[in-house]
Amino acid sequence: MAQDPLVIFTPSGKRGRVPAGTPVLDAARQLGVDLDSVCGGRGKCSKCQVAPGYGQFSKHGVTVAPDALSAWNEVEARYDRIRGLKEGRRLGCQAQILKDVVIDVPAESQVHKQVVRKRAEVRDIVLSPTLSLAYVEVAEPDMHHPSSDLDRLLGALKAQLDLETLEIDRHLLPGLQKVLRKGNWAVTAAIHDDDTPTIVALWPDFFEGPLYGVAVDLGSTTIAGHLVNLVTGEVLASSGLMNPQIRFGEDLMSRVSYAMMNEGGADEMTRVVREGVDRLIGELVAEAGIDGDSLLDLSFVMNPVMHHLFLGLDPYELGQAPFALAVGSAQRMMARELALSVAPGARAYVLPLIAGHVGADAAAVALSEAPHRSDDLVLVVDVGTNAEILLGDTQGVMACSSPTGPAFEGAQISSGQRAAPGAIERVEIDPETKEPRFKVIGCDLWSTEEGFTEAVAQTGITGICGSGIIEVVAEMRMAGIVDAGGLIGSAEAVGTPRCIPEGRTHSYLLWEDPDGRKITVTNGDVRAIQMAKAALYAGARLLMDKRGVDTVDRVVLAGAFGAHISPKHAMVLGMIPDCPLEKVTSAGNAAGTGARIALLNREARREVEGLVRGIEKIETAVEPRFQEHFVAATAMPNAADPFPLLRAVVPLPDVEFNAGTPEGGRRRRRRG
Amino acid sequence: MAQDPLVIFTPSGKRGRVPAGTPVLDAARQLGVDLDSVCGGRGKCSKCQVAPGYGQFSKHGVTVAPDALSAWNEVEARYDRIRGLKEGRRLGCQAQILKDVVIDVPAESQVHKQVVRKRAEVRDIVLSPTLSLAYVEVAEPDMHHPSSDLDRLLGALKAQLDLETLEIDRHLLPGLQKVLRKGNWAVTAAIHDDDTPTIVALWPDFFEGPLYGVAVDLGSTTIAGHLVNLVTGEVLASSGLMNPQIRFGEDLMSRVSYAMMNEGGADEMTRVVREGVDRLIGELVAEAGIDGDSLLDLSFVMNPVMHHLFLGLDPYELGQAPFALAVGSAQRMMARELALSVAPGARAYVLPLIAGHVGADAAAVALSEAPHRSDDLVLVVDVGTNAEILLGDTQGVMACSSPTGPAFEGAQISSGQRAAPGAIERVEIDPETKEPRFKVIGCDLWSTEEGFTEAVAQTGITGICGSGIIEVVAEMRMAGIVDAGGLIGSAEAVGTPRCIPEGRTHSYLLWEDPDGRKITVTNGDVRAIQMAKAALYAGARLLMDKRGVDTVDRVVLAGAFGAHISPKHAMVLGMIPDCPLEKVTSAGNAAGTGARIALLNREARREVEGLVRGIEKIETAVEPRFQEHFVAATAMPNAADPFPLLRAVVPLPDVEFNAGTPEGGRRRRRRG
Repeated sequence: MAQDPLVIFTPSGKRGRVPAGTPVLDAARQLGVDLDSVCGGRGKCSKCQVAPGYGQFSKHGVTVAPDALSAWNEVEARYDRIRGLKEGRRLGCQAQILKDVVIDVPAESQVHKQVVRKRAEVRDIVLSPTLSLAYVEVAEPDMHHPSSDLDRLLGALKAQLDLETLEIDRHLLPGLQKVLRKGNWAVTAAIHDDDTPTIVALWPDFFEGPLYGVAVDLGSTTIAGHLVNLVTGEVLASSGLMNPQIRFGEDLMSRVSYAMMNEGGADEMTRVVREGVDRLIGELVAEAGIDGDSLLDLSFVMNPVMHHLFLGLDPYELGQAPFALAVGSAQRMMARELALSVAPGARAYVLPLIAGHVGADAAAVALSEAPHRSDDLVLVVDVGTNAEILLGDTQGVMACSSPTGPAFEGAQISSGQRAAPGAIERVEIDPETKEPRFKVIGCDLWSTEEGFTEAVAQTGITGICGSGIIEVVAEMRMAGIVDAGGLIGSAEAVGTPRCIPEGRTHSYLLWEDPDGRKITVTNGDVRAIQMAKAALYAGARLLMDKRGVDTVDRVVLAGAFGAHISPKHAMVLGMIPDCPLEKVTSAGNAAGTGARIALLNREARREVEGLVRGIEKIETAVEPRFQEHFVAATAMPNAADPFPLLRAVVPLPDVEFNAGTPEGGRRRRRRG
Repeated sequence: MAQDPLVIFTPSGKRGRVPAGTPVLDAARQLGVDLDSVCGGRGKCSKCQVAPGYGQFSKHGVTVAPDALSAWNEVEARYDRIRGLKEGRRLGCQAQILKDVVIDVPAESQVHKQVVRKRAEVRDIVLSPTLSLAYVEVAEPDMHHPSSDLDRLLGALKAQLDLETLEIDRHLLPGLQKVLRKGNWAVTAAIHDDDTPTIVALWPDFFEGPLYGVAVDLGSTTIAGHLVNLVTGEVLASSGLMNPQIRFGEDLMSRVSYAMMNEGGADEMTRVVREGVDRLIGELVAEAGIDGDSLLDLSFVMNPVMHHLFLGLDPYELGQAPFALAVGSAQRMMARELALSVAPGARAYVLPLIAGHVGADAAAVALSEAPHRSDDLVLVVDVGTNAEILLGDTQGVMACSSPTGPAFEGAQISSGQRAAPGAIERVEIDPETKEPRFKVIGCDLWSTEEGFTEAVAQTGITGICGSGIIEVVAEMRMAGIVDAGGLIGSAEAVGTPRCIPEGRTHSYLLWEDPDGRKITVTNGDVRAIQMAKAALYAGARLLMDKRGVDTVDRVVLAGAFGAHISPKHAMVLGMIPDCPLEKVTSAGNAAGTGARIALLNREARREVEGLVRGIEKIETAVEPRFQEHFVAATAMPNAADPFPLLRAVVPLPDVEFNAGTPEGGRRRRRRG
């Protein structure tokens, strides 16, 4: 007898001999090839489509004959007639292997497809969602062998798809008998398998899917969500809205105070933030135009205070030392428990918090940026009201948070504003003339370019946003307008009439309207940025101390705001440690990406949970060196750390303006 | 060095040597002795109390010196001062073993105590409830090692009591931080361990318990409940109320019809029965005078239609062949899911159904009567509107149900009524004079005894209840008033003026008021009883066929009604197979007992689930021989089966009254 035919699967390269007549799907399963199937080989779902290759494959050492696979059978022909089979494709459950053959499994037939990410330094996301669909044909009731409809459904899932010890959501039981009869004893189940494999939805007969999920980044200011196709990983809709809790306080601590001062205040904030999330999900479903019944999984990231408020836990203890979390571990629950008006079987997954001030958003950043998988030492800073800082590599990861305050978001800045059309976001100052040029959000032209005035006529020039204030202060430092200690020089000292006195200090005039409205950078603004950046740097430096290093190999700026910060300017200010500029990258909304990864990959949930358990948590409030680092870091870039790499590429004039300020009489040590 | 001291525990007899200085509790754990402890040896709970024996124990071969145990320490002295320690008792966690000693573990210090049942033929109930209390001292938050309050609580349970991988009910999280601080970082947790060990309630500091449970027998007519102390097994309160569903139909099928005919009818019945159960639980809590927060476990038994309605499942399919259950397996859920206003952490356990007509009540009867553990072949009949019948022994158990109708409950009987004061419940008829005497519920005197008239003046003599109708018909058969075929003879044929014509048949006058109101047994009444008992017997006979036997070793009559049936009369009627009369016993409310067992013993839940899976289910509706057995069983006792054991002890006159009835012309074969 001849040898059994050889089957080679691509792209996996898995190969083996199977008895002639083995369906491709069975061969794939035997060889551990990732080939999808919802209907268990009944020719219904077409998820197991493969592309056989014919002819000579010298690479694999086989020649594939035209009759290597069985001819189309009735099921395949019928499928093609009704639903159309792509040229060159076969149904893996129907086509039988007769002779040596090379079978390509296209990406869409793989369960564990990869979603390619744009940035080179990060891993692709492998799809491995908690949800899958399963089509089965259920035995009808038989009075000679009485059994419940549920038992026969579970029996079919076991016998036909090898799915064992399934639970079923109780909410499905009242409709179970009708669904089975409506589908004429065929049914498609959505199975959620995170900790306990559970049937969470049922459709009569064959339901093709796909199923959807929403990843939510629940910030103190904005709530952002992405609606994702769980089969392809594709983002179908993205949306954001203002966190309606803002009316109880702009920043987190004022919300905690509200909860402490007002009976029922925490519950009220819980209610409104859940309503906000619910509204956002509704918008995403509408925007994507999907059936809400197919939206069955949600993932959430947020800071500790938002976490407690969203889960209905009083944030009282987070408002005072020792900042004890009620609950920090990852939470799995029914989405309905969060008062969300989603399908009754929808699940919610809340990523773990790291510590009282380091949230699930930081955990999500860690999941996305994977410092624990990095061979070089990486510092990840999620820049926001509260900076969350990670430092680590494969040998270990540490985390802390640092109270930067809202200056980086344009608050506490005299001309500061949120990033919105009309806000100055980029600034350059000529080191010779001390003349500025800038760009505003909503316009691609520099302020000195022709047509700028017309282009911004609509929005106006309304203020300076977070990234703009960082750039302008850094540019002022590089142009010698402000000294290392943070003092703005006078018009005479600097040599430009743009330095205008304001009380006992000076301001730098960035822009003046034809009607005389000015946008200036005051010395108070510089002070606010100094405080914020010093806090951020001191946190990072503290982790570096703990790790026993003076430098890091690379820096990742995360956070929606981090995406807009210029690495050079951040380093001139001394926000981040000295480091080659090309080693400073932006991760964009890494927290949102982490939430999306947790939605698309069940193993990633275990990974982030293990990662968070393993992270060394540093509480800056109890570290005596934090204060010391903070004081040194108020200088620009720093009064203690030399920043040689920065100085090699950027001029940092050695100016000093010690007159006309409250501290004027004190001689300060300079390194600038 | 001398040998380690020997410790002998009674009553278990477990013995071993332990290093001198070992606390008794530790020794007990090492030797696998069942000694309770809630506080993990902190001298708080006193659950580990033991009674050391001193002097010579020749049986054990040891002499116990007065200083065999360490002297009282401060903890023990303090406990005694504040709470009082019984004479001769020691705290097992404090007293250390210094020399050879005999230690008695009193019943109240055992977790797995036995609850002795009154009937000799059944097992005692071993206590092994799903709920236990655990006292721990939790570490305070530490900013140097940030962790959540929950993590520290779970860590304490693991470190101090070896309780691992606990879940916690989400409803406890909002109050967690307050409970810990209120108890000054000491807390008592109630842990429910059925499938997943879960914290279901928390009390600040030390909470002594006990915890309570309620076992509910949810019948179509009445809902009965017992409130039980889960530590002692003691029943603290029992109560019952009318099933408020009765207004939708007396019998189950009329309720199913109501659900089929009325939009929302099933939901309405679900609501009212849950309200009924809720009211019953409220009454039990009030009667027992306990704190409702300590009531944390509920068990339920009921027939399939009540089961579906109670769980919110439409009973539609149960109203028609093939009688498919939606769900039959045991159900575990939060009691709140059943809209019961109990403690938020309270759990509900619903015993499994056996088949479409054989309910969780029958499963509970099986758990209580344990045919699967019986060496002799036992027939268990739960007599009610629908008789549920079990036949089996250690080799296997079969089950079926038989539609007896409500005649046994006094319905469809001309003078029938529910069992209530004034109802005739016992009857004797003199075989010579054909004169009856009877007893009514609420009076211990026979109707012929002096003072009877006065004694029943209050209640009157209002009708015949179920057990009364069985007795009177059986007595009429033994007295030759009714023949084997079920015809009542005329006054002339029988020889008593109590046989009075009524249409073309006769009635037997059981009682006549001074004012002329009569209580009679009509030939229609006899017919109704014949139909009911024939259905019951045919079901039993069918199982015997399947098992391949003509006789059974013993019969157990279960059901509240079964408790009142006289075995002799039941056998004269041919309700149950021929069998030595002393082998017919009553199990009382075995379904309720089964529910109580499932409440008190977690292993019993697995046992009943395995038992139900293993039971061979027989659907009488599809068994051709059922009809044949039914026809033969309409005769009293039976037209086919000879009943030799019965005939040996009871006269069954060979009379025949074939005139004056619709069937009068047909000659019937008699065996009487």
